[in-house]
Amino acid sequence: MSASYDWMKESYTPGANDGRLDIANSVLLLVDHQTGLNQLVRDFEVERFKNNVLFLADTAKKANIPVILTTSFEDGPNGPLWIELQNMFKDESGKYTCPYFPRPGNINAWDMPAFREAVIATGRKQLIIAGIVTEVCVAFPALSARREGYQVFAVVDASGTFSEAVRAAAHTRMVGAGCTLTSCFAVSCELFRDWRNQGHLLASLCNTYLPAYSSVSTSFAAAQTKKN
Amino acid sequence: MSASYDWMKESYTPGANDGRLDIANSVLLLVDHQTGLNQLVRDFEVERFKNNVLFLADTAKKANIPVILTTSFEDGPNGPLWIELQNMFKDESGKYTCPYFPRPGNINAWDMPAFREAVIATGRKQLIIAGIVTEVCVAFPALSARREGYQVFAVVDASGTFSEAVRAAAHTRMVGAGCTLTSCFAVSCELFRDWRNQGHLLASLCNTYLPAYSSVSTSFAAAQTKKN
Amino acid sequence: MSASYDWMKESYTPGANDGRLDIANSVLLLVDHQTGLNQLVRDFEVERFKNNVLFLADTAKKANIPVILTTSFEDGPNGPLWIELQNMFKDESGKYTCPYFPRPGNINAWDMPAFREAVIATGRKQLIIAGIVTEVCVAFPALSARREGYQVFAVVDASGTFSEAVRAAAHTRMVGAGCTLTSCFAVSCELFRDWRNQGHLLASLCNTYLPAYSSVSTSFAAAQTKKN
Amino acid sequence: MSASYDWMKESYTPGANDGRLDIANSVLLLVDHQTGLNQLVRDFEVERFKNNVLFLADTAKKANIPVILTTSFEDGPNGPLWIELQNMFKDESGKYTCPYFPRPGNINAWDMPAFREAVIATGRKQLIIAGIVTEVCVAFPALSARREGYQVFAVVDASGTFSEAVRAAAHTRMVGAGCTLTSCFAVSCELFRDWRNQGHLLASLCNTYLPAYSSVSTSFAAAQTKKN
Amino acid sequence: MSASYDWMKESYTPGANDGRLDIANSVLLLVDHQTGLNQLVRDFEVERFKNNVLFLADTAKKANIPVILTTSFEDGPNGPLWIELQNMFKDESGKYTCPYFPRPGNINAWDMPAFREAVIATGRKQLIIAGIVTEVCVAFPALSARREGYQVFAVVDASGTFSEAVRAAAHTRMVGAGCTLTSCFAVSCELFRDWRNQGHLLASLCNTYLPAYSSVSTSFAAAQTKKN
Amino acid sequence: MSASYDWMKESYTPGANDGRLDIANSVLLLVDHQTGLNQLVRDFEVERFKNNVLFLADTAKKANIPVILTTSFEDGPNGPLWIELQNMFKDESGKYTCPYFPRPGNINAWDMPAFREAVIATGRKQLIIAGIVTEVCVAFPALSARREGYQVFAVVDASGTFSEAVRAAAHTRMVGAGCTLTSCFAVSCELFRDWRNQGHLLASLCNTYLPAYSSVSTSFAAAQTKKN
Amino acid sequence: MSASYDWMKESYTPGANDGRLDIANSVLLLVDHQTGLNQLVRDFEVERFKNNVLFLADTAKKANIPVILTTSFEDGPNGPLWIELQNMFKDESGKYTCPYFPRPGNINAWDMPAFREAVIATGRKQLIIAGIVTEVCVAFPALSARREGYQVFAVVDASGTFSEAVRAAAHTRMVGAGCTLTSCFAVSCELFRDWRNQGHLLASLCNTYLPAYSSVSTSFAAAQTKKN
Amino acid sequence: MSASYDWMKESYTPGANDGRLDIANSVLLLVDHQTGLNQLVRDFEVERFKNNVLFLADTAKKANIPVILTTSFEDGPNGPLWIELQNMFKDESGKYTCPYFPRPGNINAWDMPAFREAVIATGRKQLIIAGIVTEVCVAFPALSARREGYQVFAVVDASGTFSEAVRAAAHTRMVGAGCTLTSCFAVSCELFRDWRNQGHLLASLCNTYLPAYSSVSTSFAAAQTKKN
Repeated sequence: MSASYDWMKESYTPGANDGRLDIANSVLLLVDHQTGLNQLVRDFEVERFKNNVLFLADTAKKANIPVILTTSFEDGPNGPLWIELQNMFKDESGKYTCPYFPRPGNINAWDMPAFREAVIATGRKQLIIAGIVTEVCVAFPALSARREGYQVFAVVDASGTFSEAVRAAAHTRMVGAGCTLTSCFAVSCELFRDWRNQGHLLASLCNTYLPAYSSVSTSFAAAQTKKN
Repeated sequence: MSASYDWMKESYTPGANDGRLDIANSVLLLVDHQTGLNQLVRDFEVERFKNNVLFLADTAKKANIPVILTTSFEDGPNGPLWIELQNMFKDESGKYTCPYFPRPGNINAWDMPAFREAVIATGRKQLIIAGIVTEVCVAFPALSARREGYQVFAVVDASGTFSEAVRAAAHTRMVGAGCTLTSCFAVSCELFRDWRNQGHLLASLCNTYLPAYSSVSTSFAAAQTKKN
Repeated sequence: MSASYDWMKESYTPGANDGRLDIANSVLLLVDHQTGLNQLVRDFEVERFKNNVLFLADTAKKANIPVILTTSFEDGPNGPLWIELQNMFKDESGKYTCPYFPRPGNINAWDMPAFREAVIATGRKQLIIAGIVTEVCVAFPALSARREGYQVFAVVDASGTFSEAVRAAAHTRMVGAGCTLTSCFAVSCELFRDWRNQGHLLASLCNTYLPAYSSVSTSFAAAQTKKN
Repeated sequence: MSASYDWMKESYTPGANDGRLDIANSVLLLVDHQTGLNQLVRDFEVERFKNNVLFLADTAKKANIPVILTTSFEDGPNGPLWIELQNMFKDESGKYTCPYFPRPGNINAWDMPAFREAVIATGRKQLIIAGIVTEVCVAFPALSARREGYQVFAVVDASGTFSEAVRAAAHTRMVGAGCTLTSCFAVSCELFRDWRNQGHLLASLCNTYLPAYSSVSTSFAAAQTKKN
Repeated sequence: MSASYDWMKESYTPGANDGRLDIANSVLLLVDHQTGLNQLVRDFEVERFKNNVLFLADTAKKANIPVILTTSFEDGPNGPLWIELQNMFKDESGKYTCPYFPRPGNINAWDMPAFREAVIATGRKQLIIAGIVTEVCVAFPALSARREGYQVFAVVDASGTFSEAVRAAAHTRMVGAGCTLTSCFAVSCELFRDWRNQGHLLASLCNTYLPAYSSVSTSFAAAQTKKN
Repeated sequence: MSASYDWMKESYTPGANDGRLDIANSVLLLVDHQTGLNQLVRDFEVERFKNNVLFLADTAKKANIPVILTTSFEDGPNGPLWIELQNMFKDESGKYTCPYFPRPGNINAWDMPAFREAVIATGRKQLIIAGIVTEVCVAFPALSARREGYQVFAVVDASGTFSEAVRAAAHTRMVGAGCTLTSCFAVSCELFRDWRNQGHLLASLCNTYLPAYSSVSTSFAAAQTKKN
Repeated sequence: MSASYDWMKESYTPGANDGRLDIANSVLLLVDHQTGLNQLVRDFEVERFKNNVLFLADTAKKANIPVILTTSFEDGPNGPLWIELQNMFKDESGKYTCPYFPRPGNINAWDMPAFREAVIATGRKQLIIAGIVTEVCVAFPALSARREGYQVFAVVDASGTFSEAVRAAAHTRMVGAGCTLTSCFAVSCELFRDWRNQGHLLASLCNTYLPAYSSVSTSFAAAQTKKN
Repeated sequence: MSASYDWMKESYTPGANDGRLDIANSVLLLVDHQTGLNQLVRDFEVERFKNNVLFLADTAKKANIPVILTTSFEDGPNGPLWIELQNMFKDESGKYTCPYFPRPGNINAWDMPAFREAVIATGRKQLIIAGIVTEVCVAFPALSARREGYQVFAVVDASGTFSEAVRAAAHTRMVGAGCTLTSCFAVSCELFRDWRNQGHLLASLCNTYLPAYSSVSTSFAAAQTKKN
């Protein structure tokens, strides 16, 4: 990606280690976005929640940051990983193109050594994490990772739970442990840094996952063709 | 479609004229789903609203009932028809496969003779109508069509407007004129009548446009493969 | 039940045919309260919705009015009837104690001749109906039954759907066809007519299904034992 | 206005008497938009409510339909007419350019003979009415006017009251008496009928009173100037 | 009261029989505002609900229209009549100054002959009714009274129940039977007709029961004392 | 009050300096509860807000902790102190029984030397503060007092402002400066410590200002008189 | 419980003292879940709140962590402990199987020496606490316990109060004192750590107290029996 | 401005460096209030949001504190700066009277050297910042500025984004970095300090941008002219 970054010298200091999410130092952890657990999510409308999760996942994919998938007891009622995520991270042969850890029962993903080691193996120190449900599947590994010194970014609108009251409690707990709260669009903007980056990739993602932005873009393109 | 209906004899009396939406007597009118006007819609979340409109449109397309598209002053700020609707109703050459009426300025679509005549030309008496905004682009032609004796089904969740207060007022006015309020899923169910119809087409539409149902279906398929 | 009604002569005129729900003329139809479809219900909190449905079902059982159960495509993703309802209406051998119709695919239960005939067979003219989802599984048979002259009571808080907007549309449509909107507690009160009826059965139901009322009752009982 | 209507022959039949609001047959009644009573309005945000009322008033002014103003006990706590309405309907000498009736105490404006006679004097039969509070200052004269055969359009978003529950009750009562519920934007669209009318006057009003539309228009104008 | 009405000749035609609430033809029925049942009310905030009920009751008392009180099974958990209502309608000796019917168990107050006869005995045909809960204690007698030809005004904000969904269903049922929905302030305004009536009694009631109005009045009085 | 505290030795250690609100070390500051500013409050229903403020004020009065009143520009539109507060803190001759500072224009009460000195003069270090609007009239003096070492308790439900978003921002700012957020009932409980204190004064306050508690108490008292 | 933990060696390090809730170091305090106080809870729907509290209590019971119950002035209007909690923690003879402290009047449970000593006697340092109302009965002992060095977990959805505004203030205060906010499901997951623990006890609890999860489980079980 | 401050000596210590917003040390940064991005804002009603932004901007203009404007990719769909802001900060020749930086693509305004240098050039250390969207266009430069030691005041109600959940996350992140949350009215009050300042400029701004306050002012002025 270095090539496309050349023109960004104006505003971007690689290796600045300035606390921002860094495309070279971050990894996305998607925890338990499973079809059974999905029914527990009541703090977001289903359509928006689906869009948010896919926006986040696709951002990571397009930005070429590592992604690690995990599920909890997927052979039981919790159900398989969302089809859309399977499709996004499987190759044509149906094999995952990224590490994938179906946990046999451990609730905190960090308690599964293979998962934790996969995170370590990336060599990256900024964990972007989202999952179902927020106060357990997101908060538990987030707290564990913080204890080991990782910078943790919990993506609030790609994580869902039973109610706004429970969500707020989970956020407060994570913040108390030094995690940072963020959101899908913020992650995308913080990784890409510039609308011009990678052929206006950010706008492309917005048009796909944010219907309000897509309307703005379509109106703009149409207006350009009109005579003033 | 008569062939696929053979096995439905048990529950369906063709030509029963029983007040229900009838796949042989209905037409879908999509009025002013334009990218500029879309910004006025605040009574639904953007993601859900988009899904609803596409669910309704795809239902009509799959059920092979006629669709008539119209836009209001699309060369100005109101903007072009949603890209997704353009894609759904254009063929490979970019031409609309259904009647399409860009109105130069008339607010009530029924006031444009070509539009009204296209409705008449279908020979159908049940108008399914949705649009932006509810109290104008939906209600005005709905009221006009009622005066001419049509049965009108206003699809409340594929029509949007400024607020819930305005929406309720529009619904009340239409109901007072004899219109029927309905919704995307109800239209789909009322047209298909049976989950088995057309190769389980209804379930396919639900899986595409209703994320909660898609989760249920995915869980079901996965569970079937497990040993009990 | 005639015996227990003797003391009610003061306020109750049997056979008055006064438009009220009548314990001798009503039947409860529970339509598609299935575990898969249950995930589509977003207009009530899950705990309240479950309580409401069981309150309604138990009222009918305790009042000895006929109950008819039906499900839609229960061998697929829509899922089986709620366990709690199975338990309430099965005997020790696991057989249903009331008519039960798993529909193979018909969406409108009234379209299944066996279901409709079971309703007719009760000889009753007041249909109390609830189901998932409101605008389809409740509204469709409600409208069909109205066409055949039944008095229809749609129980709004024991029926669920995608959103409040869709629910309101379904209610409006049913009311336009002459249905009556009611609720669990109203049904229970309208059937029992008097707090003293059947050994204070109404209070017993309230204590079981309405936690706020249960608190009031417990406080009352405790206060009675205190010295003033 | 006849001149500007010439080009509208396509979609508009003057004197059609088709139930729509007619620019030649309607009059706007603004009832008790006073600064003291304004504090009772809690069913709309203050900024939106102000915009709505001014949108409606300016629509009438620009459409040249008669406007009648009235206030209730304005020398007491109810306070004077909103400054913005005073400014809109006063000439440079500070005199009202339309009939203005400060009622000494009558709550129902229709009970003041001078007010009622002013309405009669317009010779118009379609009353557009808005006020504070909805269930009294709007509903009372609306009901009285209906008894005398007027067609009444209650503008729901230019009328305010204590709560949504009270508002809904007021709407139901008015509808039961044969009033029509409408809204600011619907009134404007129904009077002007066409975006091209009077030099695109509707768009001008939208840009002034609907910030979301104004953003769309500004974006459009800017996009036109860009090279594609 | 005839004396104070002399100056109202301008706007008030006694015996006009014009459909409005008439101070000479109306009676207030307060049904089951009991301390136990009060805990079931969740569609209004407790403070507002209390104020509304007292506003309505005091309006009737000050307007000298008859009031009839009734409670349901008050010796059990439903509890006694609110203390505030007891105080308002008891004389110094602790005896009720208006008819009071503690029903031993009948849920529909109309089913208790003594209650119904007390209503008949007033000779009045306009029933203003409020109670807990809306769909039972208000709706049941409202429907019964309608069957006997009474004009029924259900006061929506002085009646409470479990949820907004249940409330809306109750309102719809009552309206379907010909009842009128109204609210505390509307009842007060409709009975008094004029701010000047009975020494500005309406303003006095508003200052007592509507804190927002009280603020306006206090500000007004203070401002009058300032030098401009 | 020492006498009544004798029996509290079990649970209360006077002078414990344990961070709790202490009846011997606290003072209540009521800032700008004025009738004009009251109209800006939209984050609470008017009835509840009024009750909360009076609950807090009466708690201080009954607990005999000092109260300091202040208003902002009360000779202008901001208006006079609420009548109810005037009545609570004036003696029969109409004179305030506590310090009262009408500020001529200073927005931050702490900027008025007389006000600040009155606080200092109490010798107390725990400031309980409430006012209109939260982010200004409460937050400004709260921040100033924190800078001088006071312990500050901001009473969130006796302070009001434009919206929940603004309220949350104000709370966050105050918490960041070391203020404690509390509420009316918490203040009352923290000062009295025991239901038995001062002749069950807490219950008396609850019955006066918390209608839900009053219902519980009335039900309890009535139940005690019934035979079990 | 050591036996069942053997297979958990993979993910669980007993005695790790890693900040998580530890089944060997925690105790549950249920404070003032009384039937009278229950009526004050308005920040949760009654059905959900009841389920949450029972979920939490049953989790502790099944996990065999100590439970301590206490009530406040239960001989007065505050009322007795919820019947459901009495049933859960009483043996067949009607005696409590865990410490139970009816406080005669102390509002802060920590102020009652017997209660505090019972906590100390458990030898555990992690207090899980829930109660009614949040800002008093939960927050007061939470703050006191923090001062003595306990780790405090406040269970936000098993604690209730007057409004969301008051709840948020209470949470903020507790967090400022070093308490951790958590929720029923999080507590259960944090104690059990693994879905396989104790014979899938967690799933059993979820099926009992979380209706949405129960639906998922029932659907799963049914699907397994179908032929694919 | 020094002159007008003379009379404020009572309450204002210039150069006190007391943490408050200081008219001599602050600068307003308006980031990306563009017509396209405006459509993404869904956490405020459009009318209120517009008023808030203009209130903030006008406050800065009237207080004569520096303002710096910037936009993001304004030649694309994001659109131009709001017309109202253009009008406020352009002179008659159409040139900006304050620094204006259209960023070609950098998302974080701080990444554009010219913008950052313009801030530095003001010599001021208190940055007041608002923009669209909150979690990106506001939070990113806020965090960058904090790293360089600026005191940052994020104006929550003049910044908008997709949802309340995302907004709360952005606020939490900024607060964690040491930013202060504030609001339009608070900024205005904190800069002006006194209602009398600059000829009652604060009241003038309130009357222009806060309709509820404007009503209060108009009522006051009217009441002054009445005879008491």
